[in-house]
Amino acid sequence: MEIFFSNDISGDLVRLNAEESAHCVRVLRHRVGDEIAVMDGQGTLLWCTLEDASVKEAVARVVRREPGFGSHPYRLTLAVCPTKNFDRYEWMAEKATEIGVDVIAPVIGERSERKVCKTDRLDRIVLSAAKQSLKAAVPVVAEPVSVLDFIASAPAGALKLIAYCFEGEKVSIAQALAASSLSDIVVLIGPEGDFSPKEVAAAVRAGFRPVHLGSSRLRTETAALTAAESVYFKYL
Amino acid sequence: MEIFFSNDISGDLVRLNAEESAHCVRVLRHRVGDEIAVMDGQGTLLWCTLEDASVKEAVARVVRREPGFGSHPYRLTLAVCPTKNFDRYEWMAEKATEIGVDVIAPVIGERSERKVCKTDRLDRIVLSAAKQSLKAAVPVVAEPVSVLDFIASAPAGALKLIAYCFEGEKVSIAQALAASSLSDIVVLIGPEGDFSPKEVAAAVRAGFRPVHLGSSRLRTETAALTAAESVYFKYL
Repeated sequence: MEIFFSNDISGDLVRLNAEESAHCVRVLRHRVGDEIAVMDGQGTLLWCTLEDASVKEAVARVVRREPGFGSHPYRLTLAVCPTKNFDRYEWMAEKATEIGVDVIAPVIGERSERKVCKTDRLDRIVLSAAKQSLKAAVPVVAEPVSVLDFIASAPAGALKLIAYCFEGEKVSIAQALAASSLSDIVVLIGPEGDFSPKEVAAAVRAGFRPVHLGSSRLRTETAALTAAESVYFKYL
Repeated sequence: MEIFFSNDISGDLVRLNAEESAHCVRVLRHRVGDEIAVMDGQGTLLWCTLEDASVKEAVARVVRREPGFGSHPYRLTLAVCPTKNFDRYEWMAEKATEIGVDVIAPVIGERSERKVCKTDRLDRIVLSAAKQSLKAAVPVVAEPVSVLDFIASAPAGALKLIAYCFEGEKVSIAQALAASSLSDIVVLIGPEGDFSPKEVAAAVRAGFRPVHLGSSRLRTETAALTAAESVYFKYL
């Protein structure tokens, strides 16, 4: 099954951009009258009939809408400090999308070696992963902010967890998830050099619960993915 | 903390190969008398004193042995069909090592597009990941065999699970793990084109239990990692 993406939908008319049109018409050789599936990126899959097989701007008409296509029964925000080697972060974004994530928030810690994070490639990666894993909602890649700003603006009604490496009283992420009935979950994952004690203290004051991810020493991107998997498993 | 690797240990004398010696002496500038940590790849960490700071063949004397360093309380064999894009398989091997795996067994399915799998790069990747994640045991990368041969030779006393995509009666991998007290676990993960019905039937006859990994459509490498995470979480 192949899913196209469009953010140009008015009423029952769906326009594909140049890249998607070329893929639909030139590569997959769809013709007028063919049934195609288009995701709106917000969670709905649109079953359509191709009306104009233009390789530059194909147009399709919606026949049936399938809301919540490929959705998951939780809302997960992964706030993760960008890794020095950014390939690893991109990999994490792809895998978290496959498993199920709603927001990927790059956050810059006081000890982050990487202080900048370009999000345009991440946008493309999560879109491609959402299509590939048949999810009609594309995760939002947030604009990078500092860890302290992220903590200050984190939603009040969510289960908020922070994973850090240095000593402190923590429960396992699985225990913290099991003990809560909240399905809006925020997990904060630090940089290679860990959070600063100041950041952890600010998080705890803001209602974040310290958690550990088990005894294995995980890289930043593996820790983020392990957190996403632990949420996924809670609802398996 | 930096761990070196040696497979040339006789009595209390540890020899580092040329690569490790150069890293120890030239890059990290260790000198005679320094304490260094060396893993034997079998699970024991050796705390040593450097006796010969040769950049070609450094020699150290064992002061203290720490068996089970970075170990996990289960034995996991991940038998996974090689992916078409082999980078993805290498990534899986790295991440599974970080989380905790004992054997990575490349298996070739009837529907595998990739029929060959070179293991020498995998050996280097799992060694590097074990060092990085402070595990003194390096996972074994098995010689590739066919799925049917793997099934025929799978150990009798292990909890054996097979994850496939097509219809069939399955429980979630978390349920299957929770229902068993066996800590020797084998998980079989198919290729992009899935296992053949013949392979699944042979697995079931050999005592493999069909499991699913939840509702997300996961790529082969993500499925393998998700299986490793589910075992890790059972013992978290």
